[in-house]
Amino acid sequence: MKKQLTILAALLIGVSAFAQQALFGGAGVESPVINPDGTVTFRYQNRKAVRVTLSGDFLPVQHLEFEMNGQKISYDAPGVAELRENNGVWEYTTPFAVEPEMYTYTFNVDGTQEIDPNNVFVNRDIASLTSVLLVPQEGARSDLYAIHRVPHGTVSKVWYHSDTEGFDRRMTVYTPAGYESSKAKYPVLYVLHGIGGDEDAWVTQGRATQILDNLIARGQAKPMIVVFTNGNISQEAAPLENSTGYTRPTMDLPQTMEGTFETAFPEVVKFIDSHYRTIAKKQSRAICGLSMGGFHTLYITLNNPDMFNYSGMFSAAIGTGSEQTAAHKEVYENVDGKLATYFSKKPAMLWIGIGRTDFLIQSNNEFRAKLDAAGYPYKYMETDGGHIWKNWRIYLSEFVPLLFK
Amino acid sequence: MKKQLTILAALLIGVSAFAQQALFGGAGVESPVINPDGTVTFRYQNRKAVRVTLSGDFLPVQHLEFEMNGQKISYDAPGVAELRENNGVWEYTTPFAVEPEMYTYTFNVDGTQEIDPNNVFVNRDIASLTSVLLVPQEGARSDLYAIHRVPHGTVSKVWYHSDTEGFDRRMTVYTPAGYESSKAKYPVLYVLHGIGGDEDAWVTQGRATQILDNLIARGQAKPMIVVFTNGNISQEAAPLENSTGYTRPTMDLPQTMEGTFETAFPEVVKFIDSHYRTIAKKQSRAICGLSMGGFHTLYITLNNPDMFNYSGMFSAAIGTGSEQTAAHKEVYENVDGKLATYFSKKPAMLWIGIGRTDFLIQSNNEFRAKLDAAGYPYKYMETDGGHIWKNWRIYLSEFVPLLFK
Repeated sequence: MKKQLTILAALLIGVSAFAQQALFGGAGVESPVINPDGTVTFRYQNRKAVRVTLSGDFLPVQHLEFEMNGQKISYDAPGVAELRENNGVWEYTTPFAVEPEMYTYTFNVDGTQEIDPNNVFVNRDIASLTSVLLVPQEGARSDLYAIHRVPHGTVSKVWYHSDTEGFDRRMTVYTPAGYESSKAKYPVLYVLHGIGGDEDAWVTQGRATQILDNLIARGQAKPMIVVFTNGNISQEAAPLENSTGYTRPTMDLPQTMEGTFETAFPEVVKFIDSHYRTIAKKQSRAICGLSMGGFHTLYITLNNPDMFNYSGMFSAAIGTGSEQTAAHKEVYENVDGKLATYFSKKPAMLWIGIGRTDFLIQSNNEFRAKLDAAGYPYKYMETDGGHIWKNWRIYLSEFVPLLFK
Repeated sequence: MKKQLTILAALLIGVSAFAQQALFGGAGVESPVINPDGTVTFRYQNRKAVRVTLSGDFLPVQHLEFEMNGQKISYDAPGVAELRENNGVWEYTTPFAVEPEMYTYTFNVDGTQEIDPNNVFVNRDIASLTSVLLVPQEGARSDLYAIHRVPHGTVSKVWYHSDTEGFDRRMTVYTPAGYESSKAKYPVLYVLHGIGGDEDAWVTQGRATQILDNLIARGQAKPMIVVFTNGNISQEAAPLENSTGYTRPTMDLPQTMEGTFETAFPEVVKFIDSHYRTIAKKQSRAICGLSMGGFHTLYITLNNPDMFNYSGMFSAAIGTGSEQTAAHKEVYENVDGKLATYFSKKPAMLWIGIGRTDFLIQSNNEFRAKLDAAGYPYKYMETDGGHIWKNWRIYLSEFVPLLFK
């Protein structure tokens, strides 16, 4: 046994010479720790640091403002807390039980933003890495975000050829548990990300595949294929997954919100219908998206009124002015006429969700006023908070159970 | 345009309140940078740090030793370099052009090991995070590890039911470009990880799907299905992807290297043959693995002599003594008899690869001596270096072109 242990230790060192740090010292503090009373403790080991703070969206938000091009922009930033040092270990325990939810946080060590080196659960958002804290609880919505011993769907990274762009592009496809061993045909939901996101965003930050697995297992949603596209049409794939190699991720990509993605969308639907066992008709197709993806959802729906029976706009970035400067202006023109055509075909559902403090609520209210004035039906959900992932996970988990009934 | 920019900025802030840091200040230094002369510059911003070092496997290795249970274990750790500070920015430039290869590195800030906060390319190995540096170069082997504009296979996370364990388990499945739109049947390669790894390891640290895409696109390998199993048989899936939620990843898992995984392997093959268009016969099946996975490969092959026509042992952890303490001793018994049976069935290839300074080279030499004495044929590759991912990527890219010809 001794010999075996020794060999195993040696093997482990071999697997990566770095791994020894995790076993034989190094960054050996435990962080984060969810305590029995629901408070959470964060730790960071560094004898020489002068000041260590923590920024996380479980702390009370800070209302901040900045000016850009002469326009004042206000937004809610995650709260900040001070860690206190004792014998080289910096520590902070929340003075409250943290509500079940999925959160992100970073440390700030003497001015440098860093992830928690003891937490291997890391999210990337554009060029920022954050550490993740998931607090699931039975009965709470966040339990949908956790992995349970239920049948799991398959999550695939799939490449399709874009005739529009002339190169291959990557998407994420979820096929529900049982898909591979059945001959049945399935309805399809298309889920679009926001600006700066990609085909990975809904799966990592959105916990979409966990939400789907859990809702389907509970019998609260129909088994469905779910397609997560990359809405940055000039990009092959998520950063580090495309042929440009290591380039710092950026939101500054060409052809964004100017009509090309919307115009090209039917080629995505065609690919899915020809490569998966789909029910290839309007009655069994849904689309939704957050922020830029909500904007995309609206215009893809209106320009293809026979394609989707269910459309969901989550904190949709409508009325941003992008429509006026677009290369493909025709995508955004004649909205009233397109709405009339769309509703004349009696779609099953238009769903709108937004946070009460979202900076886009005014343009969403104006859009709803237009629908109300014309007597067009839609479902509406207003939640606390602003333009945040917490809300988009909520909207997805409310939207999905309503589909294909 | 001004308005649009403003709104886009606001949207971006909304997507994650953290994201602003990447655009409007914060961790704003560029790191790593591959310079035109092939040297690489690393930067870290921190005004108050006292000492910042970098540990990376592109630096000359350090030969280290430690004692465990009275036994001396020597191993090669990545080299260390000092960063120099200037106006709050710490910097190090390699005094040499870094050879094309894939590397990992970490910073050490006053005793705390951290990833490079400006590099979003992060690997997890057990509980350690490291930053990744990929230096591809046309004509160099590392070009196989980069993503090119070639047809890409689909990479799926798939769950199968393990009758042995009584729960669902996760694997990674690569289907080659063209699989979904063809009716052809494909050969299958099973690829096994080392101790502390999981079904993600070969895809992240091993760059296996890039290697496959590129070799197939060059016509140097046959299109094949590749299955990456999780060899920790008591584990549902990789850490953070299983129902235990957030628990610090560990190598200390039950049922490791004691015969259960090897005994249960035919259920994996059965699942793949019944869910994919495989050529379900020995001639079209291969298996390989690194370290613990090489050990698994050997015994799965010997106990199922009609299953695999090609077997690859990469730095295989044979002769570790695990065989003597195993729960399923029968898996490891009568090796000579099993070798005789295996070779009497004329397998197409047994392939062995190991590094000259690998601590397992002696047991591998003993195993080869046994094969030589009996006149059993095998292919052998010996490389520089030890028990490291660089070698395993080399072995995979040498092994795959020899399959199914």
